Amino acid sequence: MPSGQEPLLAQGPASEASNDDALEEEDALLTGARTDGSKKSTAVIVKSRWQEIALFLWALLATVVVVILAVLYQHKQAEKGLSGDGSASPSGKRNLIFMVSDGMGPTSLALTRGWRQHTEQLPYDQVLVLDQHLIGQSRTRSSSSLVTDSAAGATAFSCGMKSYNGAISVLPDHSPCGSVMEAAKRAGYTTGLVVTTRITDATPAVFASHVRRREMEDEIALQMLGETHPLGRMVDLMFGGGRCQFLPNTTDGGCRNDGLNAIELAKSKSWNYIESREEFDNLGTSVELPMLGLFASDDFPYEIDRRYQNDVYPSLAEMAKTALDALSAATEDKDQGFFIMIEGSRIDHAGHANDPAAQVHEVLAYDKTVAAVLDFIKDSQTPTVMVGTSDHETGGLATARQLHTTYPEYLWYPGVLANANHSAAHLHYEFNDHLAGIPKHASNSVSVSSKDTKAYLTSLVSKGLGINDPSQEELDYLVQHPAVAAYGFASMVSKRAQTGWSTHGHSGADVNIYTSDPRAAKALMGNHENTEVGEFLRHYLDLDDEVEKVTEKLRKHMDVVGAASWLGDVPTEGERLDGQDHIDDYHGDHRKRSRSRSECDVCGR
Amino acid sequence: MPSGQEPLLAQGPASEASNDDALEEEDALLTGARTDGSKKSTAVIVKSRWQEIALFLWALLATVVVVILAVLYQHKQAEKGLSGDGSASPSGKRNLIFMVSDGMGPTSLALTRGWRQHTEQLPYDQVLVLDQHLIGQSRTRSSSSLVTDSAAGATAFSCGMKSYNGAISVLPDHSPCGSVMEAAKRAGYTTGLVVTTRITDATPAVFASHVRRREMEDEIALQMLGETHPLGRMVDLMFGGGRCQFLPNTTDGGCRNDGLNAIELAKSKSWNYIESREEFDNLGTSVELPMLGLFASDDFPYEIDRRYQNDVYPSLAEMAKTALDALSAATEDKDQGFFIMIEGSRIDHAGHANDPAAQVHEVLAYDKTVAAVLDFIKDSQTPTVMVGTSDHETGGLATARQLHTTYPEYLWYPGVLANANHSAAHLHYEFNDHLAGIPKHASNSVSVSSKDTKAYLTSLVSKGLGINDPSQEELDYLVQHPAVAAYGFASMVSKRAQTGWSTHGHSGADVNIYTSDPRAAKALMGNHENTEVGEFLRHYLDLDDEVEKVTEKLRKHMDVVGAASWLGDVPTEGERLDGQDHIDDYHGDHRKRSRSRSECDVCGR
Repeated sequence: MPSGQEPLLAQGPASEASNDDALEEEDALLTGARTDGSKKSTAVIVKSRWQEIALFLWALLATVVVVILAVLYQHKQAEKGLSGDGSASPSGKRNLIFMVSDGMGPTSLALTRGWRQHTEQLPYDQVLVLDQHLIGQSRTRSSSSLVTDSAAGATAFSCGMKSYNGAISVLPDHSPCGSVMEAAKRAGYTTGLVVTTRITDATPAVFASHVRRREMEDEIALQMLGETHPLGRMVDLMFGGGRCQFLPNTTDGGCRNDGLNAIELAKSKSWNYIESREEFDNLGTSVELPMLGLFASDDFPYEIDRRYQNDVYPSLAEMAKTALDALSAATEDKDQGFFIMIEGSRIDHAGHANDPAAQVHEVLAYDKTVAAVLDFIKDSQTPTVMVGTSDHETGGLATARQLHTTYPEYLWYPGVLANANHSAAHLHYEFNDHLAGIPKHASNSVSVSSKDTKAYLTSLVSKGLGINDPSQEELDYLVQHPAVAAYGFASMVSKRAQTGWSTHGHSGADVNIYTSDPRAAKALMGNHENTEVGEFLRHYLDLDDEVEKVTEKLRKHMDVVGAASWLGDVPTEGERLDGQDHIDDYHGDHRKRSRSRSECDVCGR
Repeated sequence: MPSGQEPLLAQGPASEASNDDALEEEDALLTGARTDGSKKSTAVIVKSRWQEIALFLWALLATVVVVILAVLYQHKQAEKGLSGDGSASPSGKRNLIFMVSDGMGPTSLALTRGWRQHTEQLPYDQVLVLDQHLIGQSRTRSSSSLVTDSAAGATAFSCGMKSYNGAISVLPDHSPCGSVMEAAKRAGYTTGLVVTTRITDATPAVFASHVRRREMEDEIALQMLGETHPLGRMVDLMFGGGRCQFLPNTTDGGCRNDGLNAIELAKSKSWNYIESREEFDNLGTSVELPMLGLFASDDFPYEIDRRYQNDVYPSLAEMAKTALDALSAATEDKDQGFFIMIEGSRIDHAGHANDPAAQVHEVLAYDKTVAAVLDFIKDSQTPTVMVGTSDHETGGLATARQLHTTYPEYLWYPGVLANANHSAAHLHYEFNDHLAGIPKHASNSVSVSSKDTKAYLTSLVSKGLGINDPSQEELDYLVQHPAVAAYGFASMVSKRAQTGWSTHGHSGADVNIYTSDPRAAKALMGNHENTEVGEFLRHYLDLDDEVEKVTEKLRKHMDVVGAASWLGDVPTEGERLDGQDHIDDYHGDHRKRSRSRSECDVCGR
């Protein structure tokens, strides 16, 4: 061994001078050998040397074992990635991607998986991306009902607390609760919302606004822009639909009752605004924040229809990717990462419409978005976790349906869904456009128009749904009920596929929880209340205290400006907000009729 | 330190004689110090001693760190309880408790939880025992359909392979596959089956018999007793119903077509046999094996009815406890533990009957059985794991139901289920007994008997179902269709509770997986094919090779005796075994009627 390369420990200390006796004593103490207190013998030296060698070997061996064990222990720790309480408590910069599959119950997965395996001729073990990331289920009841609506369901995520159906981040006492996104923004995180429905719809709304009725979308839009939010702008990036809610109803494509052009207002207050596919494509990764992208007047088309209009509307996966890249770039040099909510919004709508063909395309589009998110996470320099769940199940979907009183066969037909080219809603609009084009005198002449209309419908369902055996009964229904034709078209698909539905509304089924990282999301493994999902979000971002502070500030604001003027009136007892308040005792009203249905309901809204 | 207690390493080797120079060289090599090759100076000795002390301290420190790290690492390993492949691979004696909730989909949990919270006035976070042990979901499709029957579903558990609907531990090529219970028995495990349906029904049958059609229950009974099983008796304890299948149809309460009294046969071949509650109670913990307990001629009554006949039929939890104690005692001094399958059989039947009141009582009885199993495991001296799942969902249950064309409210009424005292099947039999008692001339006189019958029915549904507002339409249906009255009664409950059903058969929904020990059952966390559940069972018991050996022996037997004479004929193409073979392409038959329904179907069989 060349000089200067000795192991540090082997050099021995450069000690002060000491006598041999003392050394001998010391040696004796260390080795346990007796000393005679007078002479050094060769034997002692020999013994001492051998002791030294043995000690060295011992030390060497022990050190090697230390290194091995330390590496193994470190590995185990990393494998678990857990702090003392069993849940992830990361330190330092991090990102959180929260995904919501609105209205997707567990059976939507079996439906979509079976359809995909059939369509792509895959073996039974070729499953969805989601299937590979299941970790648990969420219970969904709200404070006002066993069956939640999206507002109460999303408030459980944003505030981590139960509230009543219709509540947008307000509690059962109608006071506001701080959301995890508001707390994140105040703590320095960059924030985003990506949806395929109106950006002012319940699920995105709860993260950056507070109202007592979800229907108050004029107000929600202004709060989300930061205009009327007591804490200012809480979101840095919004991609979705619902442009109508930002424009005055006096203009083409506007729905606002207050005459305000909220898009112009936003632009004047630093928002960057885009609304076309071209503008979206030109964004690249250099997105200037804050960014508002409203690509549809209302909802995006269902994926089953959108795929033919790819030049008009970006897909959910494309929007998610662009948003993640933008937030990633924006936070590159920051101490804090980002928090984004990405919603597969229209799975729910396909459930409301009882349209299984539309639903499988929605679920698969969501599944592809999950895949894109997982790819992003894999390449991310900053620790990033994806957690995904649904707010509730919609439709009471069943992958089996008994059509007759005879004992049912055990099957359903994915091929029927594969044959459908369009959603029932798409055919509904085509049909009603067709009817609107028929001159009055012709449509009044029932015998002629009915025959013509049936011929038209026969062609329409063949081209649009791949159905070539419509029954007279089915055609009669469509002719007689054009206002609810969407239900008729969807029913034709559902019956033939033998997929069952119990309601056009929501159900109280538990929904699945998914994650990119079971260790980080260990707190959500198993069966959990939906509020625990909300608790996880704030906990992962280390925002428990900040959420409390936001709640305090919101309450102070409420006291100052007056609750009603900001949040709206307290709903009256029995008022239907979306899933009426009720007690869960049956009181003899199973034959009662409730509110009438608008035409819009049947198209999956 | 007294002589003789020196640390071994400190003593140094009893080396052969060597000269100082050599030692010095050695020392130099170890320490890196130069040697002058001629004289020993005091400085060298001082240096050497200090080196020795440093070395000793180093070795001591390293050793302490080794001990600390080893303890920490051991702790981490124990915490994970995993072998290299991430799944539990226990060594030594162990028990396995496999629980099957036949026909219980995820929504049955939401239904039962909501009903129990309502009935017992519990807050929303008071959940079922099952809810606290969820670890994943199982995909259930069979080799012949997207919707499995119980035979193919259970064969996935017993053999770990997909087969066709109707198959009892035979494969798609109609050859037998070795079951995990057969392998367990041959490996020295003690084995048991506990059910509330016929012990010859599909789920228990697959563990100890092989036939090509599940309907061959005469043969199944003999194989399960060990009479016609090629490997002899494979089960040590059986508790359940289905006595009828063991007695000749020439005697009261007998169903066998071969004139055999299989109970007398069993008793003559070492089986201990009991059939009364009194005999069951007298068993205590000193159960002599083999033990056959058949407590019902056919199925046990639904739990909602059985609770009033507790002196006649033991509960599932009671049978499970007695069985576990018996198997535990029997294996106390053995090298191998036990393997038992416990089934909540009639959750499925309540689903077939579309009877939500009967179902919540079935699920809660199963939940209580799970609690009893967990208690047993806690106290067990032998490492014991419980894994539970369902074979499929039944009924397409939804916790929401739209009754009218108006947009549905978001709710369902657990109180309706709480009001029901009996199952729809119970009322069906009461009603038909009542009709059988009416003199012919009276029942022929429609106007009189109809009025009387409606009055009788009004009283019956009030007492039995807690329904006090039957409609004329509902009463008319019952009067006109007494043979399917069970469907009528169940529908009255379902409508008022606003619980939905899509079929009287099975559906293709994924079902939940539960365990007592997420570490041991790590391989089943997340979403899995049902065959992976079967793989887990054999893997946990370390029986992979033994299952293969059993399969070989069964195939040899088949070749020797002739396949058809043992397993039955190969089913003809298109033959309905239970869930007809089919291709999953729609071919225009959504209006086709299939086989007629027997009266028995409607009562939840």
